[in-house]
Amino acid sequence: MRVAIGVEYDGHGFHGWQRLGKAAETGPGSVQAALEKALSRVAAHPVVTTCSGRTDSGVHARCQVVHFDTDAVRTPRAWMLGTTAHLPPAVCVRWAQPVPDNFSARFSARARHYRYRLINRPVRPALHRQYLSWDLRPLDADAMHRAAQALLGEQDFSAFRTVHCQAPHARRDLQRICVTRDGDEVIVEVQANAFLHHMVRNIVGSLLDVGAGEQPEGWIAELLAGRDRSVAGATAPAAGLVFLGPLYPPEWALPAEVTLTP
Amino acid sequence: MRVAIGVEYDGHGFHGWQRLGKAAETGPGSVQAALEKALSRVAAHPVVTTCSGRTDSGVHARCQVVHFDTDAVRTPRAWMLGTTAHLPPAVCVRWAQPVPDNFSARFSARARHYRYRLINRPVRPALHRQYLSWDLRPLDADAMHRAAQALLGEQDFSAFRTVHCQAPHARRDLQRICVTRDGDEVIVEVQANAFLHHMVRNIVGSLLDVGAGEQPEGWIAELLAGRDRSVAGATAPAAGLVFLGPLYPPEWALPAEVTLTP
Repeated sequence: MRVAIGVEYDGHGFHGWQRLGKAAETGPGSVQAALEKALSRVAAHPVVTTCSGRTDSGVHARCQVVHFDTDAVRTPRAWMLGTTAHLPPAVCVRWAQPVPDNFSARFSARARHYRYRLINRPVRPALHRQYLSWDLRPLDADAMHRAAQALLGEQDFSAFRTVHCQAPHARRDLQRICVTRDGDEVIVEVQANAFLHHMVRNIVGSLLDVGAGEQPEGWIAELLAGRDRSVAGATAPAAGLVFLGPLYPPEWALPAEVTLTP
Repeated sequence: MRVAIGVEYDGHGFHGWQRLGKAAETGPGSVQAALEKALSRVAAHPVVTTCSGRTDSGVHARCQVVHFDTDAVRTPRAWMLGTTAHLPPAVCVRWAQPVPDNFSARFSARARHYRYRLINRPVRPALHRQYLSWDLRPLDADAMHRAAQALLGEQDFSAFRTVHCQAPHARRDLQRICVTRDGDEVIVEVQANAFLHHMVRNIVGSLLDVGAGEQPEGWIAELLAGRDRSVAGATAPAAGLVFLGPLYPPEWALPAEVTLTP
C-alpha cells in the first residue's frame, strides 16, 4: 500500500532534505532521516521515502509531499498524529492519505512553487528572523518584478544553477514569478515545472541587485541569455526561502494546497 | 538629553522585559538588561531605560518603546545601528529619535495593542512555531469575536488578571478587540489604555473555550461581571503573543507605527 503525506518543516538545524550516507552521520541530520525514523516507528517496519523535491540546508517547507510503501494498516489520522509525535519540534505531518501505486511524489508533480521573504530596512530583523532574509539597500520591488518577467517560459537556466547541480540539462519551464512589497517586506513567489539546484536563491540574488539599482532591469534577460553563472548575482541566504509545495493534477485527489487549479 | 527608541524582540530565551536583581542573574536574562548593556556601550556611560509596558517571559514585541537620558551626542542612526550591533540576534533597535524631557515611554502612552496568533488544526506547527500557539479543537472565530465585544469600554478586569498582578486597581479601558480567521490561523487583536498582568493571555484563554463550543458566547460577559479569576479559562501560552506597541498622541511626532491616528 502506498501513502502520501504532507510534511512541514523549519529547515534551520537540518543539513537539508536528503538523507546522508553513514559516513556523514555526525553534524546536523537530514529531514528525510528524521521522517523515515518516525514513520518506521509508526509502521513497525523500515520505511523509505521519496519526496517531491529536495530542499537545501536551512530551507523551509510548508508542504513537502512524500510517498512511501507500507504493509502496515493505519488510518490517515494515525499516520499524521503518530508520526508527528515521533518527530522533532521543527517537523510535522500536516496530512496523510492512501494513493494508487502508480503515484509518485516526485514524478507525478507538474509544478513546484517557492516563496522568498526578506526584510528591507537599515536594521536586521529580530522577530521572525528564522524565516526572513535581510537587505539594507532600499529596494524597488516593482523594478524587480518587471525584470523577473524575462524568466517566464521554457528556457535554459544555466546562469542560475550552482556548479554542484547534477541535473542532466538546465531547461525548465518557469510559469509564474511575482515580486511584491508588503510594508518593509519584499516577497518573491516563483513557480516552475521543476527547479535546478540553488535556482530560486540565485534568481533572487540577481533580482536584489536590480532592486537596489546596481544593475538595470534588462540585466536579468542578459544573464539568462548568457548562461554564465559566474556573472549573476550572489546566492541569496537560505533562511528566507520556503518550499510552498508541489502541485499535482486533480485526478490524484490530494488536498487542495497541492492540487493544480484547472 | 532624552532619546526614544523602538525595540523589536523575540521573547523566546528571555525571562521577560524587566531587569532582574543581582540574585537572579543566573538563568535566562531580561531584554531590559541586554538593551541597557548595549546602550551603555554606545553612550559610553551607564544607561537606565523606561519602557512603555513590561512583557512577560516568552512574549514578543514588534515595537516596544523605551526612553533614556544621556549626555552622549549620537545621531539617531548611530543609536539604532550601534546599539543593534551590541545586541543578541533576538533583539534589535528599529528607530531612535530625540524627544523632549517631559516625554515618558510609559506615562505619555495613551494605548497599547497586542496580537495573539494561534494555529487551529489537528497537528502542532513546525514552521513559525516560535510565534504561534496551537489549539486542536475546531474554533468558531466569529463566535469568539461576538463574545469578546462584551469586554469593550472601561471595566473591572479582575476576572482576567493573575494573582501576581501588582496594579493598584483592575479598571482598564478596552478600546478594540477583534477575532479573525486566516486559513488555519486564528488571530486576536486587542487594544486598551493599559493592560493588567496576563490580561491578554487570560482573555484569549477564555475566548478559546467559547470558540471550541465548551462555553456559550455569553460566558465572557459573565466572567467579567463575576470578577473571579478562578472561574475563567486557562492562561494562553506566551509564544503566540506579540506586543505590537504603545500609541502616543501625534504631538510627540514619533514614527507612525506608535502614533494614534486622530
